[in-house]
Amino acid sequence: MNLDRYRNLTRHLGREYINLNPIQRGGVLPVEAKKAIYEYWDGYSVCDYCGGRLDEIKTPPVCEFLEDLSKFLDMDISRPTHGARESKFIVMHSICKEGDYVVLDENAHYTSYVAIERARLNYATVKNDGYPTYRIEPEGYREVIDNLEDRGKSIGLILLTHVDGSYGNLSDAEKVGKIAKKRGYPFLLNCAYTVGRMPVKGKRLKADFLACSGHKSMAASGPIGILSMREEFAEKVLRRSKSYPKKEVELLGCTSRGVPLITLMASFPYVVERVKRWGEELEKTRYVVEQLEEVGFKQLGVKPKEHDLIKFETPVLEEIAKRDKRRGYFFYDELKKRGIGGIVPGVTKEIKMSVYGLTWEQVEYVVKAIREIVDLKKVLT
Amino acid sequence: MNLDRYRNLTRHLGREYINLNPIQRGGVLPVEAKKAIYEYWDGYSVCDYCGGRLDEIKTPPVCEFLEDLSKFLDMDISRPTHGARESKFIVMHSICKEGDYVVLDENAHYTSYVAIERARLNYATVKNDGYPTYRIEPEGYREVIDNLEDRGKSIGLILLTHVDGSYGNLSDAEKVGKIAKKRGYPFLLNCAYTVGRMPVKGKRLKADFLACSGHKSMAASGPIGILSMREEFAEKVLRRSKSYPKKEVELLGCTSRGVPLITLMASFPYVVERVKRWGEELEKTRYVVEQLEEVGFKQLGVKPKEHDLIKFETPVLEEIAKRDKRRGYFFYDELKKRGIGGIVPGVTKEIKMSVYGLTWEQVEYVVKAIREIVDLKKVLT
Repeated sequence: MNLDRYRNLTRHLGREYINLNPIQRGGVLPVEAKKAIYEYWDGYSVCDYCGGRLDEIKTPPVCEFLEDLSKFLDMDISRPTHGARESKFIVMHSICKEGDYVVLDENAHYTSYVAIERARLNYATVKNDGYPTYRIEPEGYREVIDNLEDRGKSIGLILLTHVDGSYGNLSDAEKVGKIAKKRGYPFLLNCAYTVGRMPVKGKRLKADFLACSGHKSMAASGPIGILSMREEFAEKVLRRSKSYPKKEVELLGCTSRGVPLITLMASFPYVVERVKRWGEELEKTRYVVEQLEEVGFKQLGVKPKEHDLIKFETPVLEEIAKRDKRRGYFFYDELKKRGIGGIVPGVTKEIKMSVYGLTWEQVEYVVKAIREIVDLKKVLT
Repeated sequence: MNLDRYRNLTRHLGREYINLNPIQRGGVLPVEAKKAIYEYWDGYSVCDYCGGRLDEIKTPPVCEFLEDLSKFLDMDISRPTHGARESKFIVMHSICKEGDYVVLDENAHYTSYVAIERARLNYATVKNDGYPTYRIEPEGYREVIDNLEDRGKSIGLILLTHVDGSYGNLSDAEKVGKIAKKRGYPFLLNCAYTVGRMPVKGKRLKADFLACSGHKSMAASGPIGILSMREEFAEKVLRRSKSYPKKEVELLGCTSRGVPLITLMASFPYVVERVKRWGEELEKTRYVVEQLEEVGFKQLGVKPKEHDLIKFETPVLEEIAKRDKRRGYFFYDELKKRGIGGIVPGVTKEIKMSVYGLTWEQVEYVVKAIREIVDLKKVLT
């Protein structure tokens, strides 16, 4: 065993590059969270004064934090989990019966499908409207539910991806929530890409459950998620163990503690503030779209953008790649030279990016750099 | 919402006190892990060069790490999980059928019972031999298995707690493993308190699965665990998703990433070295027992100690507490004055402690401090 490979592990993307990877932009830590890490980096560090329940710890203030978080999200009860995917699995595993159907949007994250499989459930998808918008129409839920009911299938859960990770489309949660309510099914909203970036009020959206991600969108070290729910579901989802009546079965007692939890808490005041500036983030995003469409990029998904995750169709990059000796890697390479990272290497047909949380100066630099690469290459090749 | 309570979160126990809490002694980070945190604290930080599978990431070297870890543990395949409890649940949920029996030791951690409940299984316990040793006799497994088979019950898994968290007893895993093998049942060894502290070779112990804990015993920031297994179980336990064939269903795609994983990796060379010095840790432990039994403490569990977790029956503290105006809190209070923490406040009937990883100088200081408190109080009251 060559143990030297585990010494001096370093990362360059975070510190030395402007990172455009959408899954990483919402998980960048503010300085206050970094300070808290220095205090709480040891294993079981938050457990110094634990009386047997993570969510009841007073020092550090986990208990108050979860209450504040519920208020922030306009829900009744919140628990830390290991991530949004685990939040979804917990809901499915506790309120659905084996074989039940989950009705979900075609744009759902892969983890929604995998959680369904792990919970031994079936699913029926609400299709998007295809190229180029890939929009999920709330009415689609009604049709899929009708169809399942007609076929005598048992529906256990309605799931909607608030903003999806493929196109960054914001779906109309309230409308889907109303349909779910009217038909009498519980409604889970996957907010991995929304809570912590933009304002989300669960009850206003008729959600029974919110699945949130600390490392994706709440400025926390991963992995940590939040499961927020309405009171009426707590008895089932947070049922206690018969052998250890203090412990919640679906959480296996305790879930995310230590650094992930402490950074989520330490970043909370920062997150509360930043969601208020969501309008400005949208401005930046729309500016990028406008600027890059001028040089031949084409934004996919709903227009105008209502979320920072942008997917571009980039025929102009494909064209250049055919003639550049680095092939598809030229774009990644040219960006790297300019101190920009986070774009999948080698891919030029479509690219995903986000400028969430960057300063206007950085946004302009990114736009200028990309335009320059395209212009230069168009001439040279 | 008073957000100020989340600002400047500080912890004193780790930095300012000698911490005797057994669940925290094995999760103290070495400096090399702290350095790695500085590089990887952002959410999704280890995912910069991910091709869709956490366990295949080359930068940082997650893939090699898991292979090295399998060698270190003498097993075939390893995966990160969110903790030992999650490792246990994954095994139960994938290889047992609903209603199956898990045969486990009475000293098992509460999370073993809760995982059984979550997986909708039954259990039958192998009793310990009671006060004062609470020893688990491997032969007990044979009896419980016989009994279940006679009653026509389906057994899905044999589980043994390698070292339990109540008495710190080291059980004879190899003997239990042989029984499991002979009767044809899979054998899971819960190594949360052993792997990372003392040498553990899974196959030599006839284990099919090892559940390990990074934050408890492998010098990692929590929460992270390891599930190590024999090749023959991989197909079932690590089965792939039908919808996303690259993704492993029971892991919901990816499990522990970011700081927990990077600290586990960065601490690995340190952990490999420290398990070689296990003999010295036992010497320290036995020294503490010898010294404190002289002033009226009585060690519970098997003698001599084969693990650093010590449980004492402390009638002498109870006696003093009756006459001290601080009641049971006097001991916690007096220790605190001397810069020692990690003992449950208010409890004097029995105490749990560990000096794992402390220097000899610190161990002697702890012993001297406790003896002094007892001697002084015996005189004064």
